Amino acid sequence: MTYNFSVIGKNVPRQDGKAKVMGAAQFADDIKLPGMLFGKILRSTVPHAKIKNIDISKAKALPGVKLIITGEDTPKINFGNWRLVPESMDEYPLAIDRVRFIGDEIAAVAAVDIDTAQEALSLIKVEYEELPAIYDIDEAIKDGAITIHDNVKNNTSLSRTIHYGNVDEAFANAHLLLEGTFDVHSVSHAYMEPCSCVAKSDLDGRITIWTSTQTPYYVQVLLAQTLGMRENDIRVIKPFVGGGFGGKMELRKWEFCAAFMSKKLGRPVKFTLTRDEELATGRRRHPMKMHSKIAFSKDGKITGKEFTSYLDGGAYNSMGPTAAFLCGNFGGFLYKFPSYKYNGFHVYTNKPPAGAMRGFGAPQALFVTETQLNIAADKFGMDPLDIRLLNAMETGDEIPGVTKVHSCGFKKCLEKVREVTKWDEKRKEFTKKDSNKGIGIGCYSFISGGAFNWFNTQYPFTAVEVKVFDDGTAHLLTMASDIGQGCDTVLRQILAEELGIKTEDIRLTAADTAVTPQADLGTWGSRVTFMAGNAIINACKKIKDQLFKVLSLKLEANVIHDMECKNGMVYLKNRPDKGLKFKEAVRLAQKYNRGEPIVAYGSYTPRDHGLVTPAYSFGAQVAEVTIDKETGIISVDKVTTAHDCGTPINPIAVEGQLEGSIQMGLGYATCENFVMRNGKTLNTTFLDYKVPTALDMPENEHYTIDVYDPYGPYGAKEAGEGLVSPTAPAIADAISCAVNFRFTDLPITAEKILKNISKI
Amino acid sequence: MTYNFSVIGKNVPRQDGKAKVMGAAQFADDIKLPGMLFGKILRSTVPHAKIKNIDISKAKALPGVKLIITGEDTPKINFGNWRLVPESMDEYPLAIDRVRFIGDEIAAVAAVDIDTAQEALSLIKVEYEELPAIYDIDEAIKDGAITIHDNVKNNTSLSRTIHYGNVDEAFANAHLLLEGTFDVHSVSHAYMEPCSCVAKSDLDGRITIWTSTQTPYYVQVLLAQTLGMRENDIRVIKPFVGGGFGGKMELRKWEFCAAFMSKKLGRPVKFTLTRDEELATGRRRHPMKMHSKIAFSKDGKITGKEFTSYLDGGAYNSMGPTAAFLCGNFGGFLYKFPSYKYNGFHVYTNKPPAGAMRGFGAPQALFVTETQLNIAADKFGMDPLDIRLLNAMETGDEIPGVTKVHSCGFKKCLEKVREVTKWDEKRKEFTKKDSNKGIGIGCYSFISGGAFNWFNTQYPFTAVEVKVFDDGTAHLLTMASDIGQGCDTVLRQILAEELGIKTEDIRLTAADTAVTPQADLGTWGSRVTFMAGNAIINACKKIKDQLFKVLSLKLEANVIHDMECKNGMVYLKNRPDKGLKFKEAVRLAQKYNRGEPIVAYGSYTPRDHGLVTPAYSFGAQVAEVTIDKETGIISVDKVTTAHDCGTPINPIAVEGQLEGSIQMGLGYATCENFVMRNGKTLNTTFLDYKVPTALDMPENEHYTIDVYDPYGPYGAKEAGEGLVSPTAPAIADAISCAVNFRFTDLPITAEKILKNISKI
Repeated sequence: MTYNFSVIGKNVPRQDGKAKVMGAAQFADDIKLPGMLFGKILRSTVPHAKIKNIDISKAKALPGVKLIITGEDTPKINFGNWRLVPESMDEYPLAIDRVRFIGDEIAAVAAVDIDTAQEALSLIKVEYEELPAIYDIDEAIKDGAITIHDNVKNNTSLSRTIHYGNVDEAFANAHLLLEGTFDVHSVSHAYMEPCSCVAKSDLDGRITIWTSTQTPYYVQVLLAQTLGMRENDIRVIKPFVGGGFGGKMELRKWEFCAAFMSKKLGRPVKFTLTRDEELATGRRRHPMKMHSKIAFSKDGKITGKEFTSYLDGGAYNSMGPTAAFLCGNFGGFLYKFPSYKYNGFHVYTNKPPAGAMRGFGAPQALFVTETQLNIAADKFGMDPLDIRLLNAMETGDEIPGVTKVHSCGFKKCLEKVREVTKWDEKRKEFTKKDSNKGIGIGCYSFISGGAFNWFNTQYPFTAVEVKVFDDGTAHLLTMASDIGQGCDTVLRQILAEELGIKTEDIRLTAADTAVTPQADLGTWGSRVTFMAGNAIINACKKIKDQLFKVLSLKLEANVIHDMECKNGMVYLKNRPDKGLKFKEAVRLAQKYNRGEPIVAYGSYTPRDHGLVTPAYSFGAQVAEVTIDKETGIISVDKVTTAHDCGTPINPIAVEGQLEGSIQMGLGYATCENFVMRNGKTLNTTFLDYKVPTALDMPENEHYTIDVYDPYGPYGAKEAGEGLVSPTAPAIADAISCAVNFRFTDLPITAEKILKNISKI
Repeated sequence: MTYNFSVIGKNVPRQDGKAKVMGAAQFADDIKLPGMLFGKILRSTVPHAKIKNIDISKAKALPGVKLIITGEDTPKINFGNWRLVPESMDEYPLAIDRVRFIGDEIAAVAAVDIDTAQEALSLIKVEYEELPAIYDIDEAIKDGAITIHDNVKNNTSLSRTIHYGNVDEAFANAHLLLEGTFDVHSVSHAYMEPCSCVAKSDLDGRITIWTSTQTPYYVQVLLAQTLGMRENDIRVIKPFVGGGFGGKMELRKWEFCAAFMSKKLGRPVKFTLTRDEELATGRRRHPMKMHSKIAFSKDGKITGKEFTSYLDGGAYNSMGPTAAFLCGNFGGFLYKFPSYKYNGFHVYTNKPPAGAMRGFGAPQALFVTETQLNIAADKFGMDPLDIRLLNAMETGDEIPGVTKVHSCGFKKCLEKVREVTKWDEKRKEFTKKDSNKGIGIGCYSFISGGAFNWFNTQYPFTAVEVKVFDDGTAHLLTMASDIGQGCDTVLRQILAEELGIKTEDIRLTAADTAVTPQADLGTWGSRVTFMAGNAIINACKKIKDQLFKVLSLKLEANVIHDMECKNGMVYLKNRPDKGLKFKEAVRLAQKYNRGEPIVAYGSYTPRDHGLVTPAYSFGAQVAEVTIDKETGIISVDKVTTAHDCGTPINPIAVEGQLEGSIQMGLGYATCENFVMRNGKTLNTTFLDYKVPTALDMPENEHYTIDVYDPYGPYGAKEAGEGLVSPTAPAIADAISCAVNFRFTDLPITAEKILKNISKI
């Protein structure tokens, strides 16, 4: 399809680029306020213990220390993102009487400088009564295991179930029945900017906090909750943010401490985490143990699946409830599963809590699906692409009452990668026993934001305010948060296209809870382009209605005429010569209004789209690898992707997301891994925790499949997160193709390869 | 009358007080930005000249100097507040080829610090071709006088005429005809905070400027105009402002320079004026020469008046056109003038331009009216209060087609001061020849904002946005500017009363042109309480409509029921038990809206109120003095005021305005005066330019007359500016009572008194 877009689909340079490369971008840690103090957090050094005593006397006496707080000083109000299920909110701003992992927050110091604060930490003496610690899912769920949270039996804080169709029948009638256990590990978000915030208490008692967050609204609401204040007495401002990937979407305890302490002290307080703190104690992707049983008919069609996952949640729930649900959702998606039964369990252990991370349950679930499909293809003697084409989801597919696929280019993606990679030749060639090369496939689907309201907001999922002016400019106000993914650019593009103006004509005020409209649920689940984009279209409809009315009046136009805004003009669609300059139309609309400014609110909440999401992306990725059979070292030579993200609003930004996803998937597949001993994370620097660098990146080729989603803004769907899923299965499949051994756990390291090659 | 108000009419402490006394208030000069440079202005040292050459070479070479600009570097676009009359816009951001007063802005330097910038100024060599200079009105309007602006004949840049009734007939039939010439001088606004601004050019080319201004909107529009940019690419933020009194309501040339230079340099630039610059070159009150001829009937009633004023405008028009009009307006107001003829002329001289100043033409005009009324009383052998009561305006009086008095407590004010000062006794007593005491009367009326659109804005005169939240708070966004007069407090009171919440429940975002609604014309003409107050009521009507609908639905209420918001509740007016908590009503209204936030815009533009103002304040003031007949020294012992400002929204704030007005009137009457020699202002420090201090203040007694204006917010009218008019005439009358000599020019100094006593 070709659309006559002016701004949509164009490679618009990132609007934050100049500030970033010129060093003008202000991140939270760049903020300096008069009288500002520096905060540090004292963390538990033991994995599980009762706190018997905290002696702050020596630390308090240290010159330059202004305040030390422990849990006892706080209002002791529990919190969590899952406000819909209050009993899931299992954290306190500072430990009350118990610590549950190495790194658990116990106390906070505010001092005149960082060194003093740090020294004060070393002077605080915590007396622990140590408790047995659990690091393993199997141990945690055993009957009689010590409970990490009182009243949580078997340390299983929650379970999720999805069930439709008759799985038992499918299994009974199966031509092929596969069963397997899969084990995936934990990795870090590894965002470039460590968490940082500055809180300032105003003289009227209100608080302003600048913080590195994906979700200013959550921080506002949860800060208010934990401080015992009113929501609107808290102002959260998101400065430039250097990445989040799910790791910055909750209230963080240092945000509470900064706000609470600034209020006590009447001075601003800043907290900035070190990389060591980030890696040792920060949120991470859920490690999971998964069991999958899948049935096929004679011709290779999936007939049923039973999928069970145990999420190692660490010490607190965090975003585990959502990960458990989405893991189950994606375990039964992407392909047609006539029957499906899922049970997910979130399990506490004495490790740093896992949380939301790019993919949000999908990378784990899809590693299982993709690996099992390959095993099935092997058993059937089918090509892995053929079995996928046979089972692939299509437009119109639905899980009745749950979700529906309004647009799907999955099959086209499969055909595209087959063609451009010369898959059929290469797969045959590389499968030969003496080949040290491999080619493999990985596929994905992902949501364009969630249709679930676990935060229990009373507001629209996203809202924008649009103002237009008679100088031809517009002002977009939105709480949507650019954390590096580029929504500040993409949302400007959508507004520019709607109004027929240029992106540079638009002033953007974003992510300031006091001045941008209530609310936006934040940057996660690939929701921003879809939802805020639709909210902009909604607002512009109201704006354009006013401009069109004025045009109609000026021209005394025939009622039948359609009108549009384009190229700085407002005109009759079929008579482009009959029109007004955009700015003149605004001026006249204002005249019509006797001066009132032309302003509109717009919002989007995903109604009538079931329980999961309003739209799904799809894609297929082929990885090509070379294995050094002497050393086991894996070289990923090339990654080829074909994906259906609907209309790419900004292709170059989509490409950036794609490359970042491949980098993250590559790390997940081959090198990233938290090394833990007795609850302690051992690799807490980027020297020890290995993230693929630019030099490690494979050649990358990609194709966007032409799909126009009927509900997406200008046909767009998600493009930022789904692509993190296919890379690990594709690489795993390519490795299996090269070494003729199939791995069911991640990461696949040289060591593992060598060990298993020797078995063959 | 008694009204059942919760917040209105209460002494609410100023919301800016805490920040100011604690030193937390951030004024423009307190703003420090990374990489900020410091600007200084080179000013003309001669009163009138052509610029032959400007040599900046040495200055440019000075280490630390980053940029020097002259008029030639600028886009050379003229500007002025009177956009409705483009030819009146007679200023350029920097002199192009001519200077017209000592202090005229020629060049600007930006350097790494103030000392370097100052040194650079001394290295710039300006070659002048001097022209004859004019310092006097009579000289300026003489035929054949050199013209200060080309094409402005007789240096009379504009005239204003008001004419109604038959003046000639009144004069012909007069029982008493008085004629006199009056001369008033120039005084300074003497605001505590010298002008300051910081401009920052963003990487996208937009500009943000923090500036000490009364009129952020004017600065936005005129900066855009002079820079050749679009209005909405300029963001003006008003920080705390330390007084304005009319002196900060135009685009100032250093604002242009800061913006222009920051754009050129890519670094923020700050300009802060010195007190010397302020007093030597800043705006000031118009000196005027006035001629008045007034006719009375046999019984003492005014039958007609012919009034002519010549305003010494200095080198540019500035706000002269408005001062010329308002002077004429007030020359024919306060009393009933059956016929009236006014001619006002704005005359250029080679002196610093006069501009708007508290009272805006009224202090000058009313000095004439009041003095002439006293002379008439003497002639008639009437008491000055009696002649005033006989002629005083009343509710319902109008000048057909021009203006109408909707509420007037003037007679009550006269009666009140008569009673409480024991006027009748004292006047008799002090008039005796051997008394060195005097008692005198001065009266006033003033506008509650102007109904004229000389700025030619396309927006409402004022607009607000009100948001309410289900935590019981509200957010008020307004471009209205608190410059120390207290509107941030008063507008919160009005909103609190409307919604039945507390002032501390309200977050206020004010005076930021990028986020507060378009537009507000600024803080001048005592317009803010009246106009922004009405805009708030307008917005709240829309908010309350939603809350009432929800209440109606919840109660399934009888259609006849009135409802109100009070004490944190929304309920049936006659059944206060039938209601909801305010925050619960908001929550339900949002539920009804399926999540949409409860937000409303409101605006006010003074339509259907004639050409002048929607409401007039009135008042009478009695001054008591003691004159040392040996030295001529005047002691003002007591000032008693009764005034009709409608409902005082915040009585303690009204009292503050009253005290400040008396202080200013006292200075105007007795000690403040710019001493000029050959166009140069000689008294440019507060040691030489004498402003009354707290120790100089007389005893002060005041009464608010109970008047409820039908159009004012909660019956309020102006309270900030009118009171600056009566003090000088009252003191002058008291002096005449004491020394038996009537002065027709200001200030009345000890020297003048001595000189004139000796004549008697």
